[in-house]
Amino acid sequence: MMTEQFVTANITPLDSLDTLSPYEVAKLQDRNEAGLYPLFRQCALAVLNCGSELDSTQQVLDKHKDFDIRVSQKHRGVQLELINAPASAFVDGEIIQGIREHLFSVLRDLLYVGDEFAAKCCDGLDEGGQTTNMVFHILRHAKAIEPHVKPHLVVCWGGHSISREEYIYTKQVGYELGLRGMSVCTGCGPGAMKGPMKGATIAHAKQRMADARYVGISEPGIIAAESPNPIVNELIIMPDIEKRLEAFVRLGHGIIVFPGGAGTAEEILYMLGILLHERNSTCPLPLIFTGPAGSEAYFDTVDKFIRATLGDRAASLYEIVVDDPYEVAQKMKAGMARVTDYRKATDESFHFNWQLYIPAEFQQPFEPTHENMAALDITRDQPDYLLAATLRKALSGIVAGNVKAPGVRAIAEFGPFELSGEADLVGELDELLASFVQQRRMKIDYEEYSPCYRLVHAETA
Amino acid sequence: MMTEQFVTANITPLDSLDTLSPYEVAKLQDRNEAGLYPLFRQCALAVLNCGSELDSTQQVLDKHKDFDIRVSQKHRGVQLELINAPASAFVDGEIIQGIREHLFSVLRDLLYVGDEFAAKCCDGLDEGGQTTNMVFHILRHAKAIEPHVKPHLVVCWGGHSISREEYIYTKQVGYELGLRGMSVCTGCGPGAMKGPMKGATIAHAKQRMADARYVGISEPGIIAAESPNPIVNELIIMPDIEKRLEAFVRLGHGIIVFPGGAGTAEEILYMLGILLHERNSTCPLPLIFTGPAGSEAYFDTVDKFIRATLGDRAASLYEIVVDDPYEVAQKMKAGMARVTDYRKATDESFHFNWQLYIPAEFQQPFEPTHENMAALDITRDQPDYLLAATLRKALSGIVAGNVKAPGVRAIAEFGPFELSGEADLVGELDELLASFVQQRRMKIDYEEYSPCYRLVHAETA
Amino acid sequence: MMTEQFVTANITPLDSLDTLSPYEVAKLQDRNEAGLYPLFRQCALAVLNCGSELDSTQQVLDKHKDFDIRVSQKHRGVQLELINAPASAFVDGEIIQGIREHLFSVLRDLLYVGDEFAAKCCDGLDEGGQTTNMVFHILRHAKAIEPHVKPHLVVCWGGHSISREEYIYTKQVGYELGLRGMSVCTGCGPGAMKGPMKGATIAHAKQRMADARYVGISEPGIIAAESPNPIVNELIIMPDIEKRLEAFVRLGHGIIVFPGGAGTAEEILYMLGILLHERNSTCPLPLIFTGPAGSEAYFDTVDKFIRATLGDRAASLYEIVVDDPYEVAQKMKAGMARVTDYRKATDESFHFNWQLYIPAEFQQPFEPTHENMAALDITRDQPDYLLAATLRKALSGIVAGNVKAPGVRAIAEFGPFELSGEADLVGELDELLASFVQQRRMKIDYEEYSPCYRLVHAETA
Amino acid sequence: MMTEQFVTANITPLDSLDTLSPYEVAKLQDRNEAGLYPLFRQCALAVLNCGSELDSTQQVLDKHKDFDIRVSQKHRGVQLELINAPASAFVDGEIIQGIREHLFSVLRDLLYVGDEFAAKCCDGLDEGGQTTNMVFHILRHAKAIEPHVKPHLVVCWGGHSISREEYIYTKQVGYELGLRGMSVCTGCGPGAMKGPMKGATIAHAKQRMADARYVGISEPGIIAAESPNPIVNELIIMPDIEKRLEAFVRLGHGIIVFPGGAGTAEEILYMLGILLHERNSTCPLPLIFTGPAGSEAYFDTVDKFIRATLGDRAASLYEIVVDDPYEVAQKMKAGMARVTDYRKATDESFHFNWQLYIPAEFQQPFEPTHENMAALDITRDQPDYLLAATLRKALSGIVAGNVKAPGVRAIAEFGPFELSGEADLVGELDELLASFVQQRRMKIDYEEYSPCYRLVHAETA
Repeated sequence: MMTEQFVTANITPLDSLDTLSPYEVAKLQDRNEAGLYPLFRQCALAVLNCGSELDSTQQVLDKHKDFDIRVSQKHRGVQLELINAPASAFVDGEIIQGIREHLFSVLRDLLYVGDEFAAKCCDGLDEGGQTTNMVFHILRHAKAIEPHVKPHLVVCWGGHSISREEYIYTKQVGYELGLRGMSVCTGCGPGAMKGPMKGATIAHAKQRMADARYVGISEPGIIAAESPNPIVNELIIMPDIEKRLEAFVRLGHGIIVFPGGAGTAEEILYMLGILLHERNSTCPLPLIFTGPAGSEAYFDTVDKFIRATLGDRAASLYEIVVDDPYEVAQKMKAGMARVTDYRKATDESFHFNWQLYIPAEFQQPFEPTHENMAALDITRDQPDYLLAATLRKALSGIVAGNVKAPGVRAIAEFGPFELSGEADLVGELDELLASFVQQRRMKIDYEEYSPCYRLVHAETA
Repeated sequence: MMTEQFVTANITPLDSLDTLSPYEVAKLQDRNEAGLYPLFRQCALAVLNCGSELDSTQQVLDKHKDFDIRVSQKHRGVQLELINAPASAFVDGEIIQGIREHLFSVLRDLLYVGDEFAAKCCDGLDEGGQTTNMVFHILRHAKAIEPHVKPHLVVCWGGHSISREEYIYTKQVGYELGLRGMSVCTGCGPGAMKGPMKGATIAHAKQRMADARYVGISEPGIIAAESPNPIVNELIIMPDIEKRLEAFVRLGHGIIVFPGGAGTAEEILYMLGILLHERNSTCPLPLIFTGPAGSEAYFDTVDKFIRATLGDRAASLYEIVVDDPYEVAQKMKAGMARVTDYRKATDESFHFNWQLYIPAEFQQPFEPTHENMAALDITRDQPDYLLAATLRKALSGIVAGNVKAPGVRAIAEFGPFELSGEADLVGELDELLASFVQQRRMKIDYEEYSPCYRLVHAETA
Repeated sequence: MMTEQFVTANITPLDSLDTLSPYEVAKLQDRNEAGLYPLFRQCALAVLNCGSELDSTQQVLDKHKDFDIRVSQKHRGVQLELINAPASAFVDGEIIQGIREHLFSVLRDLLYVGDEFAAKCCDGLDEGGQTTNMVFHILRHAKAIEPHVKPHLVVCWGGHSISREEYIYTKQVGYELGLRGMSVCTGCGPGAMKGPMKGATIAHAKQRMADARYVGISEPGIIAAESPNPIVNELIIMPDIEKRLEAFVRLGHGIIVFPGGAGTAEEILYMLGILLHERNSTCPLPLIFTGPAGSEAYFDTVDKFIRATLGDRAASLYEIVVDDPYEVAQKMKAGMARVTDYRKATDESFHFNWQLYIPAEFQQPFEPTHENMAALDITRDQPDYLLAATLRKALSGIVAGNVKAPGVRAIAEFGPFELSGEADLVGELDELLASFVQQRRMKIDYEEYSPCYRLVHAETA
Repeated sequence: MMTEQFVTANITPLDSLDTLSPYEVAKLQDRNEAGLYPLFRQCALAVLNCGSELDSTQQVLDKHKDFDIRVSQKHRGVQLELINAPASAFVDGEIIQGIREHLFSVLRDLLYVGDEFAAKCCDGLDEGGQTTNMVFHILRHAKAIEPHVKPHLVVCWGGHSISREEYIYTKQVGYELGLRGMSVCTGCGPGAMKGPMKGATIAHAKQRMADARYVGISEPGIIAAESPNPIVNELIIMPDIEKRLEAFVRLGHGIIVFPGGAGTAEEILYMLGILLHERNSTCPLPLIFTGPAGSEAYFDTVDKFIRATLGDRAASLYEIVVDDPYEVAQKMKAGMARVTDYRKATDESFHFNWQLYIPAEFQQPFEPTHENMAALDITRDQPDYLLAATLRKALSGIVAGNVKAPGVRAIAEFGPFELSGEADLVGELDELLASFVQQRRMKIDYEEYSPCYRLVHAETA
């Protein structure tokens, strides 16, 4: 039996990436602020740490404080020197090939965003247009844009710490998707991020799909907590969380949501908010919520919350399938056909959903300070897509106040967030969170949970 | 949910096989004795029936008596028409690609053996040499001979109806083999034939091994009961069971035996008998028996039997590893290195073990009639490799007398087989079988089991 | 500057061919009558001698009497040891890759025909059917049968010692064919066999046709005199001259004939005889005779001969294009479209013209003895296709009597061949040959040429 | 026969390039100053005009003033619409595949330089460093940087309007290079730019070099006059002439110079000036001047000029080989081995010669105005590499004054250029040019040639 340890190794280059310039090599080694070293080290560590059970960035960094990575250039190309790397990335002292590729994907994306890509690219476009083009350029540079391939990429969202039954279910869904030639895109990490890929791998082997895609889209702030599974054969590091979300919805052709926690609910609100905007009213994007028998509560809660806040139109944008991987796959396949027809009819590319309009409220980051939380306007007196954006922000803030270090500290210091708006809307939020707590879907102290917010200035609807 | 049914479909050709001649097409359609239709239909049905739980050839044939398969030739190549085929081979009406390939592998091998291959090939060689060359030609024609690839192919033997824990264990072993770049060869079918391939598939995905091999070697008499898993990406149909065994030991570079039943014990005796022959005394062939915690009994029994009958030299030819997939893979990897060194040192090819001497007693079929059983000489008064051959034959006959239709009928009509030889040797056989019964490893009526043989003319050792 | 010499070298194997069995290696080394060594040595020498100006098999064998070739088997595969090989096959001591491939093509085909292929293959077919199937099997085994590729293979016939202007013209025609995606098949050797391939190579580079085919079909009796050009990327050695001709017409989709000598005229009669048979009356096979300005005489002579003997229907089966590579390519492209349509309409494969009926008179060899020549019935009192066969045999005999060693000796000993039939038919033959002599298209002593035949028993038409 | 005409056609996309963003498509269509349309149209026309005899940009633009090119985006990718394109780019209405690739190479490079590439890339480097990195980034983006491939790329320089004998000789040299596995890089266009590629194509076919490179490096100002040959399988459009020269010497591993005119002499001075710099004193770069018998005069003249001005050390940097393609290839192959050894020893990459120091005087453009010409200091009182730079500038100016429209106008208006420096150096220049005139190697009116410069302020050496 193998016992855990640290490994020091030299990693020989991949063909596609050993043509760095000396300048780029120097930049990766540069430990100053302008340099890429700190970011590169953090992402590389995350990639190497894929077998770990730790899901907190800080814990990972602490455990591996002696880890180091150095880049050198030989006539044979770029060489990475790993010092005190997590042993789980290695088999008998040899790095797992998938992880080796991930290391070089990290390097590729950090250099492209940090040096080669022109900040002034797409002169004359508005901010949203520039953001979308940047997302596109990063994906294209990473060769994630595949022209002429019919819509087939299913984004899977859901929790990374789900039950064994739920995990097995995600594998089954992945298997049925794979049998039908669909590929999988997730946010990296274990649980619902990994299960569909494993299932699909077996199905793709049976279908001889040599070009199957297992796309993992991450970003520097989250990757350490959600290390990419080595099955991921296209790892892309987006610069921040909003561009990561935009990459999901423009690159993917359909979305399956498995049970998760508050983060999954945020993703659902993100997606619904975009789809509710009138400019997207005709644009098909199959959206299915599904879980095994025994996990119905999660989507019951979410569905009830959506109907009560955003209304039935929002609820008509998704389907809920309980315990039937076969049906999930059938519905998604039918959805892919609708997407294909629509793109043909509107001359949209198969490889990037340029048409989808992402309102600024979803493209720009939200920082959950007391001030920003107080400024939220939780009322129905606004277009539904904006209410979705507002609810997403409130949910995001509450999660931060409950479990994220800066949020918890802020609550301790300044007291609970103050939310203003319609009482029943805030009440629905309250109920949603209470239900997640009851289902043990949040990483909190379940014994002593108390809400980190209170309602003020309630309006009467 | 899908409900089982029958499917009728046209299967478009594979590039590699749609260059049949009109004569070959006619031969596949020929329902006369000289024709290949009956054999082709039977094997094709087996391949299509891969999801089935049935493990009796007769049951499979009975259930699918309306199945038919027709071959036609278009300017686009060969087309197969399937009528009333098992639905499990299809996804939404489309045949699973792996199964489609298997259909054409069957066709390829039946035609090669039945028509193209020269019976007079290798004029001047003795019978054993001709058999070995035939095995080689069939494998080479099936492109299973890969030159210049270092020894890496692990043959996995074991039962096809094993416990859930044993099945999971075979997956774990396959995973560890796959992580180390080894490929898997089995006899097709479920259980220990399928688990290692599934585990290896996940590992190969992580290691990006695009050229991983999942070799399945079957023969017409057994394929219906042990349908190849669609993961198998090289299916080879040998003409009979002895050539199938020879293909295993000449193509594979090492052997892992998982728990099984009497058939697995026969395979062990086959392997040991060959390795005991003095002409093979320096030829390395890693041989590992392994199972999970809780399954030790099987190999304890087998080990005890071997030591008691063939002696400790025979027992020195294998290792037993309990519940440690990591160690199994490590040992096999080390064994591969020994095989590689030996082949280099002796100028033997990596792709076919020409050097291994297979005595005639193992190359020729044994038919378990009363006469043949009575003629067996179960004594230590012969070279150990011949005793292994004799014990294998006796075991084979007893299994036939217990569970195979013709054997059971023969016993009912003529009474038990009569075995002659040393009492303690026959006693060991007796005990081995009793232990298998006790471990529920034979498909018999456990309540009413009574031995189908008796000892006569016992010699004193 | 390089000066000619002999080279001794070891040739490492090609992947596709280093899986020979020890038995096959022994057979190639066997210098007895049953062995393949003499044939292998002769063909290998021919292949290595590609740069040579010699065009007589005997001269080649004499010059290279010290040449030897040995086959050995290592764990790395088959190795060829060349002793005193022609230096022109090497560049700085390294064998030219195309020639290396040719060596292994020779080995592949000799072994297949000499050992693996079942003489009894295709039991139950008549002799013609068996011959056709053997041609097919050899081509398929050599991977010359490419399914699903639209008709595009143009067979080029013509002389191997043509004028510089004619040679440049064949390059231009090859270039125009290549620009239109057509590939080239010839009988190997220089002149009209090489020019079209060189021209096509440049065009294929411009069109990025990575899968362009340069097929050379030879046979042991002729290969030494017509060494394959290294551009040939599919060399096939058929067992004899009739199977070589059958391979041309079943594999190719159209035929271009450049100026040549009596041998070219024989090929024309072969093709016309087949096309005249009523069973081939609807089967399109584009046939174009072409040469540069200044070479009109050759086809004028041939055309006049055909019209006078076989009649205008035969002349309607070909087109003559003078000095216009562009038009030749245009017409051939149009012909390919007709072939494609016909094969689709009749469910014939694109890759082998099974439909074409080759009468026994064209499939069986003709030996030009005095007896056989006297037995020819050169009259119009027979179907035109049989007259074509007869004229081809007469022509073949006369050429033998003029220039081939056994023929010349026979004439010297027994006097001229006696031909019987219609006087004007024999007169046309006489005129055809005289014209070839006048155009310096035969390898004879032009000063002292006297016919080697005389007409007896002339019939009145 | 085909008669010239214009063709209007839609060109379907290449996989690698139909993932343009809508923004990029708009930029290519933008006819304003900031847009890329004018440049794209000019380069596209040059690429399509490859069969033309015209070698003046203005003539090409005038003849094709009705030519237009439009870009549109479909769900299938980018489509180019060509209006009134030169017919020579088409075969039966279909564009030649090599030319289609060139169109998309143009588009790729213009977009990369014009939009995606960060002007601020490589912050902190000096101007020379930034230029070199830009050259590298453009080449890498064009996939011209191939890691791990041993030095094998031979740059061929020389005239594009050379004699038939010289052209055939360049083919022979290309053939011998190709036989030895070397690839060819030229500046596009006919003559010495095309011959080596044609010869190499035939040799590469014989050597089965599927990955042979035919690199053409051009720039917008010159491409119309020197259309790339469709054999070029890597076309790269550098932004200006100095970056084009830098690309040659950093990408290539050796240089062969065939006879040319004054432009070729300028390239020789560029190369020698760089090699003379002490920082390059140990860096091997094989440099061979060669031509057929009958063309010795060109290199005699050049050699005499170099010895008289730069001295024997400069002359030691090249070898002159007369009429021996075999020896040229042998010497170049030996040179490649030296380059390989040196790069290994100094850990330099094989794919880009970062080590080579290019002094600012060679990296920056020189504009031949009267003022700039008068400022040249043509004396030996400076390092030899600077004298080489100065002579190159003087030569460049004189050529401009003789044959380039702006230069001729300037001379007509302001009188001859005034050069100052040592009389004998200017005299050598004079003699060199007179010799080119005598050899008919300049496009001038030979009857009325009079120098466009005069010597003033001569210093005494």
